[in-house]
Amino acid sequence: MSSAVSTKPPAVVLFSGGLDSTTVLAIAQEQGFDVHALSFRYGQRHVQELAAAQELAKLMGVRKHVVASIDLREFGGSALTADIAVPKDRLPQDMSHGIPITYVPARNTVFLSFALAWAETLGAADIFIGVNALDYSGYPDCRPEYIRAYEAMANLATKAGVEGGQRLKIHTPLIEWTKAQIVLEGMRLGVDYGQTCSCYDPGDDGRPCGRCDACLLRAKGFAQAGLPDPLHQRFNAGHP
Amino acid sequence: MSSAVSTKPPAVVLFSGGLDSTTVLAIAQEQGFDVHALSFRYGQRHVQELAAAQELAKLMGVRKHVVASIDLREFGGSALTADIAVPKDRLPQDMSHGIPITYVPARNTVFLSFALAWAETLGAADIFIGVNALDYSGYPDCRPEYIRAYEAMANLATKAGVEGGQRLKIHTPLIEWTKAQIVLEGMRLGVDYGQTCSCYDPGDDGRPCGRCDACLLRAKGFAQAGLPDPLHQRFNAGHP
Repeated sequence: MSSAVSTKPPAVVLFSGGLDSTTVLAIAQEQGFDVHALSFRYGQRHVQELAAAQELAKLMGVRKHVVASIDLREFGGSALTADIAVPKDRLPQDMSHGIPITYVPARNTVFLSFALAWAETLGAADIFIGVNALDYSGYPDCRPEYIRAYEAMANLATKAGVEGGQRLKIHTPLIEWTKAQIVLEGMRLGVDYGQTCSCYDPGDDGRPCGRCDACLLRAKGFAQAGLPDPLHQRFNAGHP
Repeated sequence: MSSAVSTKPPAVVLFSGGLDSTTVLAIAQEQGFDVHALSFRYGQRHVQELAAAQELAKLMGVRKHVVASIDLREFGGSALTADIAVPKDRLPQDMSHGIPITYVPARNTVFLSFALAWAETLGAADIFIGVNALDYSGYPDCRPEYIRAYEAMANLATKAGVEGGQRLKIHTPLIEWTKAQIVLEGMRLGVDYGQTCSCYDPGDDGRPCGRCDACLLRAKGFAQAGLPDPLHQRFNAGHP
């Protein structure tokens, strides 16, 4: 973490340590924001994702990284937080129709609400989130119309909104990008994708399963970008 | 808690164990909903409020009471969660102008988001919250326009919204009521106000301070309703 006082405007970046949100973090930094990264310990079944987030936040020199603990398991309802098998080897056309069972109820709404609380405390007018409407059209809370409605609500929810301060903006730089575009932009910005964790069901050592929706989309992205995935190089170096 | 299977529609009620939300819970029950009560352990300085909520949830026979743990203290910024003195002996005109320092950043947005997650899991289309725009005009997230914007966002955020299910409604029965109207309606519905906890700064035994904004508004409400506050009777019985 950086300790020098910054003259850059603060921004809150929702940051899971996965491919998408790590790219978003790099984009926010390139746009000149002093990044405050926010992750969640929310009853997800693997902790490798959080370990990756903590390592990357350090590597990328964010101002502050907060890991907030919440527990959505009390409400039940998804493979990412409950005891339901993660689907494997699905075809792209099956991923992009209907609501995936890995959907967590109201997850982005909960995450954005914590980001809003932190932004208000910081006096920040900018929140970044790595939602993507193309790869995951099945998630209602990844759609542009949802983000716009959230922004409208947020601007009525806060002191700044009431007192006529700066208008809060939810930035979604990836929302219309393909996985290949995300990878290419991240590479240009120097993101170390070998440290990111995308898999819904990794091994204890963090090795991706290679077969869940997230792994398959990631592989497709690197293939279409014409680049090798540094994560595979990392895991295959020691295990040829 | 009731254990029989219910044919009533489920509703999530945000429930602090205070005067307002306890009245809302009784209203939701009278309207025929199967109440799922949601409280938060969020770094507030006193736990008496939660003890009151747990006791009342049992007394009132709710279907299920979940106490979700969240920690807004990591973000700083309010008397209710940080180490700033609770203001005492303020005049009504001072309470109702500007943002009180007891304001917690984005609190209702965070609370409603958890309620939304639970509602989605339950298949509930109804959320109740005891916001009041008259007594606390200083809180941005207690205003009708905020609630309407939240409802619009919530209907884009969830599976039901995408799949064309029942439209989600945020019920705010108290929003235009005076404290006296709230007390009179609660009395009519048989609410045991002797068990509710409103004070921002109670003693270890739960005795209200009598001087914070919440105590003063509560006292005014009972006075205008022409009724004694059962909470005072409870505490004065043993300590004349």
